[in-house]
Amino acid sequence: MPADAPGRGPGFDDGLPPLVDHHCHGVLRHEPDPRAFAGYLTESDRPPAAGTTFFDTQAGFAVRRWCPPLLDLPAHCSPESYLARRRELGPDETRRRLLRATGIGAYLLDTGLPGDLTGPAETAEAGGATGYPVVRLEALAERIAAAAHDTEEFTDVLAGAVQAAARTAVAFKSVAAYRHGLALDPGPPTPDAVRAAARSWLAAGAPRLTDPVLLRHLIWLAVATGRPLQLHTGFGDPDLRLDHADPALLTDLVRATADTGTDLVLLHCYPYHRQAAYLAGVFPHVYADIGLTLTHTGPRATAVLAEFLELAPFGKLLFSTDAYGLPELYVVGSALFRTALSALLGEWTAGGAWSQEDARRVGAMIAAGNARRVYGLPPTEP
Amino acid sequence: MPADAPGRGPGFDDGLPPLVDHHCHGVLRHEPDPRAFAGYLTESDRPPAAGTTFFDTQAGFAVRRWCPPLLDLPAHCSPESYLARRRELGPDETRRRLLRATGIGAYLLDTGLPGDLTGPAETAEAGGATGYPVVRLEALAERIAAAAHDTEEFTDVLAGAVQAAARTAVAFKSVAAYRHGLALDPGPPTPDAVRAAARSWLAAGAPRLTDPVLLRHLIWLAVATGRPLQLHTGFGDPDLRLDHADPALLTDLVRATADTGTDLVLLHCYPYHRQAAYLAGVFPHVYADIGLTLTHTGPRATAVLAEFLELAPFGKLLFSTDAYGLPELYVVGSALFRTALSALLGEWTAGGAWSQEDARRVGAMIAAGNARRVYGLPPTEP
Amino acid sequence: MPADAPGRGPGFDDGLPPLVDHHCHGVLRHEPDPRAFAGYLTESDRPPAAGTTFFDTQAGFAVRRWCPPLLDLPAHCSPESYLARRRELGPDETRRRLLRATGIGAYLLDTGLPGDLTGPAETAEAGGATGYPVVRLEALAERIAAAAHDTEEFTDVLAGAVQAAARTAVAFKSVAAYRHGLALDPGPPTPDAVRAAARSWLAAGAPRLTDPVLLRHLIWLAVATGRPLQLHTGFGDPDLRLDHADPALLTDLVRATADTGTDLVLLHCYPYHRQAAYLAGVFPHVYADIGLTLTHTGPRATAVLAEFLELAPFGKLLFSTDAYGLPELYVVGSALFRTALSALLGEWTAGGAWSQEDARRVGAMIAAGNARRVYGLPPTEP
Repeated sequence: MPADAPGRGPGFDDGLPPLVDHHCHGVLRHEPDPRAFAGYLTESDRPPAAGTTFFDTQAGFAVRRWCPPLLDLPAHCSPESYLARRRELGPDETRRRLLRATGIGAYLLDTGLPGDLTGPAETAEAGGATGYPVVRLEALAERIAAAAHDTEEFTDVLAGAVQAAARTAVAFKSVAAYRHGLALDPGPPTPDAVRAAARSWLAAGAPRLTDPVLLRHLIWLAVATGRPLQLHTGFGDPDLRLDHADPALLTDLVRATADTGTDLVLLHCYPYHRQAAYLAGVFPHVYADIGLTLTHTGPRATAVLAEFLELAPFGKLLFSTDAYGLPELYVVGSALFRTALSALLGEWTAGGAWSQEDARRVGAMIAAGNARRVYGLPPTEP
Repeated sequence: MPADAPGRGPGFDDGLPPLVDHHCHGVLRHEPDPRAFAGYLTESDRPPAAGTTFFDTQAGFAVRRWCPPLLDLPAHCSPESYLARRRELGPDETRRRLLRATGIGAYLLDTGLPGDLTGPAETAEAGGATGYPVVRLEALAERIAAAAHDTEEFTDVLAGAVQAAARTAVAFKSVAAYRHGLALDPGPPTPDAVRAAARSWLAAGAPRLTDPVLLRHLIWLAVATGRPLQLHTGFGDPDLRLDHADPALLTDLVRATADTGTDLVLLHCYPYHRQAAYLAGVFPHVYADIGLTLTHTGPRATAVLAEFLELAPFGKLLFSTDAYGLPELYVVGSALFRTALSALLGEWTAGGAWSQEDARRVGAMIAAGNARRVYGLPPTEP
Repeated sequence: MPADAPGRGPGFDDGLPPLVDHHCHGVLRHEPDPRAFAGYLTESDRPPAAGTTFFDTQAGFAVRRWCPPLLDLPAHCSPESYLARRRELGPDETRRRLLRATGIGAYLLDTGLPGDLTGPAETAEAGGATGYPVVRLEALAERIAAAAHDTEEFTDVLAGAVQAAARTAVAFKSVAAYRHGLALDPGPPTPDAVRAAARSWLAAGAPRLTDPVLLRHLIWLAVATGRPLQLHTGFGDPDLRLDHADPALLTDLVRATADTGTDLVLLHCYPYHRQAAYLAGVFPHVYADIGLTLTHTGPRATAVLAEFLELAPFGKLLFSTDAYGLPELYVVGSALFRTALSALLGEWTAGGAWSQEDARRVGAMIAAGNARRVYGLPPTEP
């Protein structure tokens, strides 16, 4: 985080341990053109409206606040100046400078997105940190389907691949919210139902996986491994229907998995983050995540984090950036988290609601400790 | 806005251009009695509960804060004193004084509400501004139905009337939220379906239009003209079911209209304004509006506007008052907008999150520039 | 409320009348063990997740803030020290000390929860106040069913018992949200439907009542008495589905009861409190409650109360604690309410949005006056 950030004195963020970014993505290996760069500032997959730019968003302003000083430019310089300097430094140096300023010590990186992106180890190395892979279930299934000769081969290979992944990955991730919505039947589908669904899907050429039976099958395969399962909830790109991504819709699945020993981590959650915090509050195996949400709300990150911290037990909330494509999103996600957390802890201790000691302890839990416990990471990175 | 408002120094609102009130209604030509006056302070169409008064609401307190000084009375004087002074001045002088204090330069006025109300030009003239008509689709259809002799005449005249309106009105408005709720089939109904629905409706004597086929037909007739379409979403009077007015329910219609070239403006939105801001963020042709919402939340307008400004791109949010009946609601809607905007821009620049230059630019966009672009208004009024 | 609470100067809470806690529960007569104590700090009915404790929640921190000074310990002392001191004082002295610090003058106590709990008079006496019973409909029906010999006896005794309860209780309470969810058919079930449902339920041994016909029958029996009906809405323990407890789902029932003369009080409401405030704003016979919600949101109580006060008319919002089991929850619920209310009134008067006089008046309404009017209590307690 820039040391020269305006309006920052010493705060609770200064005492934080290295952050564990428990849900993130690779960054582009190459230099994006200005239009591609701007496209990473939004969850839209469409062009901006005429007369508007994706830089005119909280995420765009946050990038212009936090990143230029790391590339030797003044905060809030123009997008053009920033992108020119970025090209001058090149993608490797830009990535190194930006990631080293995040304070992130461990990257739990979802490897399931397409594109020429850095992997877990490569991302972590640029940031002087450790990388861990997270396996995206739908991408795994689609890859296996593309190579499978028949239904039986598909289901067998898939089951084996999920078990194998559980030995190397720290978590699984489901994007059922994008593919069908979260109003899924809660229980595992029967083997017959899985076979029938797989047969139809393969017969259709295995396009983008949206079949609810197969989506549930993936979830239950992952749950059976005992590895934490990250579930996309809340906002995202526009092929999701927002109201079908309300985490409250997962309640029956949450109940059905309560005795499996597997933890569920509700990602993003916004604008249903109070619902997610509630679920984390009443179900022992449910956790909530702030990634993506803080990045896209800029100076409102403090208020939004505060809303999470109404019902979420302090041992149940996890930091992430959900950064994707641009190392800038790692900077913004971590800086906004630190700023927001420090502001809240400062306010609550100043008012006497929390003790200083509790504030430091809870800050460290959300920043790193909870994720280390949930994902079984070492107490510190080597 | 009263110059003597307590606690106001120079702020970002001082540099704003004349506001464009992109969604509002006429005001009463006559003097309302006290009970009728109070009835305009609430979205309820019923009497207040025993022992309560509609003055005891944020809207009521806001009127008592901002309006008495404009009529030479102290802020927060009693409703009785205020209404007495109002009668003394008469409706014309009251309207002139109040509207001139709003800073509004253009009124985009929905002409579809009943009552002895000022029209666009008349309202604007009292405020020293320009008026533009907005055509309410359901009112247009009901008017045509009342005069039509048969189904064919109705559908023909309606289609022609919408096309004609597009040549003079700056926008259309749909209140499908009130009439059916927003969970509508997304596509245009077939001509056969429209004829059948029209036949039934006319046969029943063309009562208040609630048929979902006809509501969709109106929407698609309007969309075909290319004029922006304003859609009521969120809270309103009690014949609406709040949960059926969540703008997220419009997602499929939003997708279906994505390539038409017509913009959709989600009105009001509260308490689903974060959902509306999300839609404005991911769909190029979707915009969000703050009207009604700020008026009814009083000193909370700052927090609510901030929630809009989490996901809404800054080029996608539009000021309005949704004032109706009382010129006081124009004063309150504009004063709360200016106050809230100034507070946010002040906070975000003071904290370094935004630059001063960006803050001024974005303020002007929300206050006027976005609406001028979307509705094709001249850069300034003549 | 502790006089030595940090950061407190004189505020609007100093002028408040004795509070009317219009919805609460008995406290344990015996000393709970540490695990049982912690279990009352959460709405979960399950153990905490490994590595976490229910003390690490806003409710837990709030108890450690407000209660230790009342037992001669420093604020924020460890749970262990606090519980040790509590055991030393014993349950009677603890209860007396804690309840006397709440400023509550009247307890409207739901007697329908199981356990060795203090009743209305006993609770009130410990707090130097007056107690009034509230009758929980489902508990009443289950008790009657356990003794009934046949369907006819059950329905007859139930009808008589509701009428009898209306003569001694100040209100009824429905937990249909827990038993079925709030998406109930709005009208009263027919006598035949009631008999059929009762027959099936009794034949099954009258387990926990979840039949929607019987739940509606109870609601309409209560409505017929004219006594206010409290309805659980929003969050609660995990056998409710949060999205099925959105008070907006009650809209049709609200409409169906509009002309009965009976008031409906929406309890808790969070995170749908803006929806509840809207309903209270547009329907004369609907009220909203802050109980449970403020207790569980700690220093966020100010922000959450502010959200209620966006659309809720000031004569329509009621204070309660929803305290249950621990007298600590009475302390926390009342202290957070006073603190939050004082902060808001202070902010709104300082900014000029509200007058001092209005602020004092509205504070007294929410604290006590509205409840005294709705429940027909005397202007002050004897």
